[in-house]
Amino acid sequence: MKIDHVGIAVPDLEESIRLYEETVGLVVTHREEVSSQNVRVAFLGNPDTTGTEIELLEPIGEDGAIAAFLAKRGPGMHHIAFHTEGVGTEMERLKASGRPPLESAPRLGARGHHVCFLHPKHCGGVLLELVGGPL
Amino acid sequence: MKIDHVGIAVPDLEESIRLYEETVGLVVTHREEVSSQNVRVAFLGNPDTTGTEIELLEPIGEDGAIAAFLAKRGPGMHHIAFHTEGVGTEMERLKASGRPPLESAPRLGARGHHVCFLHPKHCGGVLLELVGGPL
Repeated sequence: MKIDHVGIAVPDLEESIRLYEETVGLVVTHREEVSSQNVRVAFLGNPDTTGTEIELLEPIGEDGAIAAFLAKRGPGMHHIAFHTEGVGTEMERLKASGRPPLESAPRLGARGHHVCFLHPKHCGGVLLELVGGPL
Repeated sequence: MKIDHVGIAVPDLEESIRLYEETVGLVVTHREEVSSQNVRVAFLGNPDTTGTEIELLEPIGEDGAIAAFLAKRGPGMHHIAFHTEGVGTEMERLKASGRPPLESAPRLGARGHHVCFLHPKHCGGVLLELVGGPL
């Protein structure tokens, strides 16, 4: 699987977008409000390539995983997402190998893609996401 | 700039290599002991692509930044590295913009490349690395 994106929890989306524009020359490729997850997100990438992107996640309100993460750990890296065409198949395989995803079935994530997450306790302290094609 | 790799601090390199092989199908592309940084590292990528990789960093002994990170925060994501051909030029630009790198000049990093780091306090809680070509 290829690394699709690296998720970063931020308190201020616009300020963080400027940071990645100014320090490493990334550009915004997509913006979205994911109400079900209480976040506003922006994807940033290299304008010349289709490689791995950065996903900045700003909480909406005080509920949700990103608000909780910021309150507990402060701003910083939140997850690493890997692309696979077969999220459902991979979920079954991981479950059988003793690393059950947090979800029982793929759910709708940002950009209309189906996704699932693996708990950091199964992955050396790293929250891993699997992201497939559009649902 | 493209994302070169995502650095992850781990207590046991071999166990973590197995984790990324088994969960997301990565393969080891490079191994190295970076004595100057008190770490043993492994780079893992997708066998079919030349995209962004994972760098696993295991401390050697109890000194060094990775040992300190593990003691303070536990295993997990440590830094994001961006590739640029001109590390020295970028360092001057960043210094002038109020985000001075931790080093005053590029230093030798893993794989014989010259690198520098930007402090998380200048980058929204994320340790950013710039990595250039071979020194």
